[in-house]
Amino acid sequence: MFLGKVIGSVWATQKEVGMDNLKLLVIQPMDFRDSEAGTPIIAADRIGAGVGENVIVSRGSPARTLFTDKMVPIDAMIVGIVDSYEVTQETEEEVWKSRSKE
Amino acid sequence: MFLGKVIGSVWATQKEVGMDNLKLLVIQPMDFRDSEAGTPIIAADRIGAGVGENVIVSRGSPARTLFTDKMVPIDAMIVGIVDSYEVTQETEEEVWKSRSKE
Amino acid sequence: MFLGKVIGSVWATQKEVGMDNLKLLVIQPMDFRDSEAGTPIIAADRIGAGVGENVIVSRGSPARTLFTDKMVPIDAMIVGIVDSYEVTQETEEEVWKSRSKE
Amino acid sequence: MFLGKVIGSVWATQKEVGMDNLKLLVIQPMDFRDSEAGTPIIAADRIGAGVGENVIVSRGSPARTLFTDKMVPIDAMIVGIVDSYEVTQETEEEVWKSRSKE
Amino acid sequence: MFLGKVIGSVWATQKEVGMDNLKLLVIQPMDFRDSEAGTPIIAADRIGAGVGENVIVSRGSPARTLFTDKMVPIDAMIVGIVDSYEVTQETEEEVWKSRSKE
Repeated sequence: MFLGKVIGSVWATQKEVGMDNLKLLVIQPMDFRDSEAGTPIIAADRIGAGVGENVIVSRGSPARTLFTDKMVPIDAMIVGIVDSYEVTQETEEEVWKSRSKE
Repeated sequence: MFLGKVIGSVWATQKEVGMDNLKLLVIQPMDFRDSEAGTPIIAADRIGAGVGENVIVSRGSPARTLFTDKMVPIDAMIVGIVDSYEVTQETEEEVWKSRSKE
Repeated sequence: MFLGKVIGSVWATQKEVGMDNLKLLVIQPMDFRDSEAGTPIIAADRIGAGVGENVIVSRGSPARTLFTDKMVPIDAMIVGIVDSYEVTQETEEEVWKSRSKE
Repeated sequence: MFLGKVIGSVWATQKEVGMDNLKLLVIQPMDFRDSEAGTPIIAADRIGAGVGENVIVSRGSPARTLFTDKMVPIDAMIVGIVDSYEVTQETEEEVWKSRSKE
Repeated sequence: MFLGKVIGSVWATQKEVGMDNLKLLVIQPMDFRDSEAGTPIIAADRIGAGVGENVIVSRGSPARTLFTDKMVPIDAMIVGIVDSYEVTQETEEEVWKSRSKE
């Protein structure tokens, strides 16, 4: 999974089978030091993530397994809203602590 | 999924089993600020996307699950035609709004 | 899928179960403007692609689904030989037309 | 799989089905010469890896197959804690030996 | 698949279910012109590859399908030991020929 920040939404009327009633959010991948890490991607959300929140995103076929009753052709899913994370970088003997909700 | 712009088509007569009657489009991956993001890829389309339109592309095995009656060896599929998207970049306190069809 | 040019072959005598009788070609990923796009990969071929031809390559588990009678541990497959492609880049108001076989 | 160093943890209360009781660690991908190799990712851990340890991380659907009784939408899993590794770079006629636990 | 050179081994005592009795090798991805192409990865080997040999590596779920009797959470597998390869680069009218074993 990767850490991302929700930065927006996408809307589509004309879509493939299985894409109905899916909330699609735009996710900016982040490293754990508040910097962006690459191009934003689009992920489905069922747990109520909002713009500005840090989320955990799972990609590939694992994301699809959440839909047991139908085929949903998605390759990215928000699987958690981050309460907090703590990262230690030993080589520089510093500790970053971060909380997404305060 | 990622945001892409349809920039062309590819035709192939000699092809693998399961590739018949598939419309193959060339997709330029885009970030959400109207810049290109990497090398164009080839995706299958069943929902009628046209050149110049912004689309949502799903990759990997999820793309294949749409074909329930036969094996289709594709790894990328257009799953939605973008009506509009809205992206906020909080750190710079700016808002980008964009619509693909106007 | 991605656009690639066949640039060579690989031979292996000692190999895993399921790799017998597979033609393995070396594919240079290409963008659609005749430039190379990254490191060459190795893909299986069953449709008779030759050196110098442009091909469509599918990656990941979709490539494997073509083999219904046995387990073939490949992650890339040539799924089409390109007759022609046409790419429009609107922002610069230019049109590239290309044909791989003339 | 790739070599990574455990550099932290992530906590999430609001999460998707199947994400309960999973320990989520932050992994810095490493090359085999003690340098970082890209952006940290988030992986699930069931074998008791701790901060500072070198681990083997498996990605994609293989990670998910470990959970046979339920659907777990993860795409990265720690599959081993590295005792030691040995890497030879022939071109420079040097040998790196490294041990993560001493 | 990609071309890689075996540059070492990794050992782990503490590991996930299904990882027992697997030989894990460190593989340096190579382009076909004797240059390194990215960060080394870890792949399982059942066909007896040794340090210094060129190998074909398959990634993702196809690698896992070789194990039919149990769940093995690996995402990379050596599927062939390269006898030889031949690569032509037409644009520069040069031919590289290479043999990994002489």
